[in-house]
Amino acid sequence: MEKQKVVLAYSGGLDTSVILKWLEVNYGYEVIAVCVDVGQGEDLIAVKKKALATGASKAYVVDVTEEFITDYIYPTLKAGAVYEDDYLLGTSFARPLIAKKLVEVAEKEGAVAIAHGATGKGNDQVRFEATIKALNPHLKIIAPWRIWDLKSREDCVDFAVEHNIPIPVTKKDIYSRDRNIWHLSHEGGNLENPWNEHDNSIYMMGVAPEKAPDTPTFVEIEFEKGVPVAVDGVKYSPIDMLHKLNQIGGVNGVGIIDLIENRLVGMKSRGIYETPGGTILFQAHKALEKLTLDRATMSFKKTVSEKYAQLVYDGLWFTPLKDALDQFVDSTQQVVTGKVKLKLYKGTCAAVASASPYSLYNEEFVTFGEDHVYNQKDAEGFINLFALPITIRSLMHSQMQQEQKKEKKVI
Amino acid sequence: MEKQKVVLAYSGGLDTSVILKWLEVNYGYEVIAVCVDVGQGEDLIAVKKKALATGASKAYVVDVTEEFITDYIYPTLKAGAVYEDDYLLGTSFARPLIAKKLVEVAEKEGAVAIAHGATGKGNDQVRFEATIKALNPHLKIIAPWRIWDLKSREDCVDFAVEHNIPIPVTKKDIYSRDRNIWHLSHEGGNLENPWNEHDNSIYMMGVAPEKAPDTPTFVEIEFEKGVPVAVDGVKYSPIDMLHKLNQIGGVNGVGIIDLIENRLVGMKSRGIYETPGGTILFQAHKALEKLTLDRATMSFKKTVSEKYAQLVYDGLWFTPLKDALDQFVDSTQQVVTGKVKLKLYKGTCAAVASASPYSLYNEEFVTFGEDHVYNQKDAEGFINLFALPITIRSLMHSQMQQEQKKEKKVI
Amino acid sequence: MEKQKVVLAYSGGLDTSVILKWLEVNYGYEVIAVCVDVGQGEDLIAVKKKALATGASKAYVVDVTEEFITDYIYPTLKAGAVYEDDYLLGTSFARPLIAKKLVEVAEKEGAVAIAHGATGKGNDQVRFEATIKALNPHLKIIAPWRIWDLKSREDCVDFAVEHNIPIPVTKKDIYSRDRNIWHLSHEGGNLENPWNEHDNSIYMMGVAPEKAPDTPTFVEIEFEKGVPVAVDGVKYSPIDMLHKLNQIGGVNGVGIIDLIENRLVGMKSRGIYETPGGTILFQAHKALEKLTLDRATMSFKKTVSEKYAQLVYDGLWFTPLKDALDQFVDSTQQVVTGKVKLKLYKGTCAAVASASPYSLYNEEFVTFGEDHVYNQKDAEGFINLFALPITIRSLMHSQMQQEQKKEKKVI
Amino acid sequence: MEKQKVVLAYSGGLDTSVILKWLEVNYGYEVIAVCVDVGQGEDLIAVKKKALATGASKAYVVDVTEEFITDYIYPTLKAGAVYEDDYLLGTSFARPLIAKKLVEVAEKEGAVAIAHGATGKGNDQVRFEATIKALNPHLKIIAPWRIWDLKSREDCVDFAVEHNIPIPVTKKDIYSRDRNIWHLSHEGGNLENPWNEHDNSIYMMGVAPEKAPDTPTFVEIEFEKGVPVAVDGVKYSPIDMLHKLNQIGGVNGVGIIDLIENRLVGMKSRGIYETPGGTILFQAHKALEKLTLDRATMSFKKTVSEKYAQLVYDGLWFTPLKDALDQFVDSTQQVVTGKVKLKLYKGTCAAVASASPYSLYNEEFVTFGEDHVYNQKDAEGFINLFALPITIRSLMHSQMQQEQKKEKKVI
Repeated sequence: MEKQKVVLAYSGGLDTSVILKWLEVNYGYEVIAVCVDVGQGEDLIAVKKKALATGASKAYVVDVTEEFITDYIYPTLKAGAVYEDDYLLGTSFARPLIAKKLVEVAEKEGAVAIAHGATGKGNDQVRFEATIKALNPHLKIIAPWRIWDLKSREDCVDFAVEHNIPIPVTKKDIYSRDRNIWHLSHEGGNLENPWNEHDNSIYMMGVAPEKAPDTPTFVEIEFEKGVPVAVDGVKYSPIDMLHKLNQIGGVNGVGIIDLIENRLVGMKSRGIYETPGGTILFQAHKALEKLTLDRATMSFKKTVSEKYAQLVYDGLWFTPLKDALDQFVDSTQQVVTGKVKLKLYKGTCAAVASASPYSLYNEEFVTFGEDHVYNQKDAEGFINLFALPITIRSLMHSQMQQEQKKEKKVI
Repeated sequence: MEKQKVVLAYSGGLDTSVILKWLEVNYGYEVIAVCVDVGQGEDLIAVKKKALATGASKAYVVDVTEEFITDYIYPTLKAGAVYEDDYLLGTSFARPLIAKKLVEVAEKEGAVAIAHGATGKGNDQVRFEATIKALNPHLKIIAPWRIWDLKSREDCVDFAVEHNIPIPVTKKDIYSRDRNIWHLSHEGGNLENPWNEHDNSIYMMGVAPEKAPDTPTFVEIEFEKGVPVAVDGVKYSPIDMLHKLNQIGGVNGVGIIDLIENRLVGMKSRGIYETPGGTILFQAHKALEKLTLDRATMSFKKTVSEKYAQLVYDGLWFTPLKDALDQFVDSTQQVVTGKVKLKLYKGTCAAVASASPYSLYNEEFVTFGEDHVYNQKDAEGFINLFALPITIRSLMHSQMQQEQKKEKKVI
Repeated sequence: MEKQKVVLAYSGGLDTSVILKWLEVNYGYEVIAVCVDVGQGEDLIAVKKKALATGASKAYVVDVTEEFITDYIYPTLKAGAVYEDDYLLGTSFARPLIAKKLVEVAEKEGAVAIAHGATGKGNDQVRFEATIKALNPHLKIIAPWRIWDLKSREDCVDFAVEHNIPIPVTKKDIYSRDRNIWHLSHEGGNLENPWNEHDNSIYMMGVAPEKAPDTPTFVEIEFEKGVPVAVDGVKYSPIDMLHKLNQIGGVNGVGIIDLIENRLVGMKSRGIYETPGGTILFQAHKALEKLTLDRATMSFKKTVSEKYAQLVYDGLWFTPLKDALDQFVDSTQQVVTGKVKLKLYKGTCAAVASASPYSLYNEEFVTFGEDHVYNQKDAEGFINLFALPITIRSLMHSQMQQEQKKEKKVI
Repeated sequence: MEKQKVVLAYSGGLDTSVILKWLEVNYGYEVIAVCVDVGQGEDLIAVKKKALATGASKAYVVDVTEEFITDYIYPTLKAGAVYEDDYLLGTSFARPLIAKKLVEVAEKEGAVAIAHGATGKGNDQVRFEATIKALNPHLKIIAPWRIWDLKSREDCVDFAVEHNIPIPVTKKDIYSRDRNIWHLSHEGGNLENPWNEHDNSIYMMGVAPEKAPDTPTFVEIEFEKGVPVAVDGVKYSPIDMLHKLNQIGGVNGVGIIDLIENRLVGMKSRGIYETPGGTILFQAHKALEKLTLDRATMSFKKTVSEKYAQLVYDGLWFTPLKDALDQFVDSTQQVVTGKVKLKLYKGTCAAVASASPYSLYNEEFVTFGEDHVYNQKDAEGFINLFALPITIRSLMHSQMQQEQKKEKKVI
């Protein structure tokens, strides 16, 4: 009888190697390892080899870095979505894309299940599984960390030794990390006490502000309909642009945040995030919107951004609400065309100038000098009506007080 | 016949001096000059003298700096209200307080009108007048810039010469400025083209990041129910604390922003704002909320913050909605007690550690190690139900496709 | 020298007839009368004749009833936009369309100005003028009621007599009314005291509930992507469908509301609105959305509906935010296909059954009987994580209390 | 060794009787039955007796009807909270109160666990358990329907027979019902197909509209700060008032709804709800707010209402966000004092008149007659500034088009 197939999200690390073998041993599955490349910068050929050596019947390496940027990062950038004011969603929006590729391989291979190595305490399990359910509700999902008896790294090492799985020589880092072309996160270890300061030496995508150059770097980003297309006047492919901005941001100590966030699964956690290029793009995009969007649109778009960020964080990428929000956002971005100049300096990243053919900043109206277009007399009528509810209420209270005085006198 | 009295918001500058005389000449009013001290740091005794010398029948100097901090700044800080993501509302929330004092003097003096020197293009006229209407709807409001024939500084100088008003020797600054203990704003001049970078030499409350010390400064802020009470373990009065934080922030180049904003009166404008101490307080307060507020409260409080910021910006301080939002905010602040350590370095200001007796960060739950309190198996049920709407929709589409296939076969 | 042209929104009533003449007399304009037909059901040929008789150089009658339904009513229906919970925006969304036609005629005729007969206290002036400014910012706008000396009907009659304008024999109604194919409003007269009950005899599009038939009427509405396409299984054109539903709703006393609303210009007003067919459509559409939209989409769409209603009420139809909201809405409507059965009875209008190929109501999941698809055990994990923030907070407080007890004991 | 105690939410029905015995048999618990009276109108002395007869060591009957009205219903009424536009939350807000009483008894009796009879598919399990976790995180929770082997009524009957539990003679109703003083719900049976119309004969708190009197009933409700205090001029206790309004509403066929709702646990369900008195109160309260709240407050309060309804529906009564929303609401209710007259007629319930000392409806401003207080000329300035963003954008596009034309000519 033929074995049933399971598709495993495989990274080449100890955990997913153990899972690979465990799926075989425990369920008798034929395991197909899939490593999705979202720009994490690892040697994926080695990962593929290791998967096969560990017992996978097949091993896929799928490079989706460009799709990741254009279809996941750019929509989120256009939406201005930032989770809890600070987190640029680096891990969050990679998960649905990875899960989508797992489903595609599963359907192609006729697999009955998908397995992943996310733990039972984090957001990633939700993001993976919500996506799988959205794209193929008939696939079984296996999350070994929630069900097996291995409770620690030691247990995994024992299992690995027992099943001849090569164990990385490097000592396990105290931090848990996630990396892709957009960002890198650090969690765990001494970060688990919020009164501990994090150590500057952990950065991997850039340097600490103190180690950045003593003179500012200026960079000019050009956008077309909300999408970045050029840096300092030169057009780049999405991947090249992000690499370039990561480099510029990284050397200037830009885009490092240390924060406590609310996980979807109900607990708070702390993370250090590095997002050098992403921070530049978000700052630039925001500055351009300030120039080109009207007040009412900007204000409502904030509401949309909040919801968008929450959906992305919660793994609800493939949902009707997310689709509808994208439609809203795209409509607003028709005029977000132009350029923004930013100053990067020792961890700061500030827009210093902006220009757009769709600029709503009209010098003729705003000038302190003499007016031709704006009639200051209009302001009186504006204020009288804008504040009319205030006046009516104030009159009501005033009349009430007078009547109370009269009543007192009568008595 | 006795002259009618008008109360004038008087600053001692050329504009309000000309207005003082103009009210007398034009309407035959007796003018009572009122200079409200919100920490703008000017010589107010000299201002008072000048008012009387220019023709005021009386001149008040009213120091409300502490009330400004405790009743206007702190509520806004607790609300986390920031206009259009960046502006800490420094000018906005000073206006209702100033107007309140004008009304108080007008009522005490039996004045029939209040005059102010705000132009017809800005937000301040709205903030002043909405407050006056809220507190006393029977007072007449006079805004000379909207009605007189003086159209420029030159016209004002001519008027001043004609009426023996002393003209400041100093050349008029190219920028229009507003200052109080919380912030300083710069507008006009070459800032009116958004592609112009602003000049670093304009700062008055601090230095440019490039001129800040080469080593970071750490500062620890302690809060009780959302209100800052101590710096580096030492209790301060509100005024002393803000002076101290302005000094620390200022030398480190913290709190400078350059932005384009949407004015209430319908146009965009650009301003440079310096808010050194305020920036430290907002960052610290936000970090403490991340530790002590639950996800749902934080998320809805964002909606409240947005509305609060808009009300404050628009001058709608004395309104029922503002009162109700304050009640919401105060309820959330019951647990915002604790301390935050910040690192200030060349313009950056980042929380690096936080602690609170009401911390909702629970290391036992979040740890990557073995669990006693959290059952990872719960996650499967959680995900199955959290994603159930996704699954049901996915099943519906899947069934629809199968039926369509069947129909095709039949045909 | 040639006269300048003005386009006048002309209704044929006394007011706009007087305005027509006044524009000629007062400014020396050549007046082009435009009567836009949005289904108000008047004799527009007579109106046209009267315009010419009163001195118009040209008179247009433009029938836009179908465009009104498909491009103004349907988008608002799909958005579920209702102002302040009750008002179906009947007058509001007719105004931008009328103004658009005025601009088109003005541009075609080379007119320099547009005049309208809306008063200075209402919303309509804003809706007309915001639209004109959006579509052609160079056109001058004339609103005679805000500027001329005629202050009452008597003044108008005098002016009419003086200029040989025919005066309607009918005594002026005590109510001010607006009518189109969607609705009819009554304002003024004894309605201006909110403690007065309105008189049932004023209805014009239907009967009072007490006069409706003693047996219910059932009606079935079919939608495709949020747009109504059939009634009781029969396809109708937009105009025919609305006439039919107005008739069915009207005889059953459906869609009459009496409410106090907040005008944009700062005051409250009271109106009686009749919207028989519209009420049926809104109820049916809402019921179908309950069947086909998921919870998150429904919830956020409420936020969108509120904003949409406010924009429409405020006359901000031709704005980028309105466009972006339409995109959001259209995305949600892809699955709002199906049918709803309603019961109309003496003023009530309730959905009693609904069905859709995109129904998310899944009997297998909801049944009280035995389960195959839903595992009740999942609920425990769901609740544990859904309520985890509650548990963590509760544990924190519990621990705090225990420590306080210990401290007391020690003391 | 002493038995551990469990507190059981006991109704006297077959299900909770079986659970009572099962807790004893299965766990060896000593069972304390608690029946919380929220106005469900059953013979609670009989229920108590039955509990003891079935094996409970103790049986409590706790009457919380008044607390239910004043502390749960009134806050929700003041908040204007309605779930998904229609559901008045009748079951939802009873659950946290019942659970609170269970916790109180558990703490008094030294019980280690609480058991309830809610199924694993509904919202009530979440409402009970979230409350228990909030009030005492150390109590164990037992939900037999999620864990035992009894899968149907037949299984329960078998278990009952085996353990000598008296079985009700009445045939099990096809509907699942929940009743308290506020409402009654019907679910299940033939309602599970949304295309089925529900049967009018199921109503228990009132009659079908068709059976209501042929003449309208008028009723006048008086509120103080958002809380109803009198009916037709007579003061009533909370319980008496609700009984009276249920009676008046019930005979007039008021407050019946049939709807599909989104459960928190991810599925849609359908219910028929009867809320006669509650519907009257909600309509009256809304009408009074329309008279007394300003536009901005009303608009933001809608956002608060939505969130409030969701929290109540989801069982998140004892949460910091709920507390903060209550503070917001109470602040808005300071002026919601006055009276509303309603007309009830064959299922309709409409406010027809309203009055308040805090009325913001000001006849002087709104009148169509001559003005003393409102200057229509103000409207021009208002519109010019209100629509300035539109004008600026329109000018920008107009200029852009002209430049494009020029460019074309040059080429």
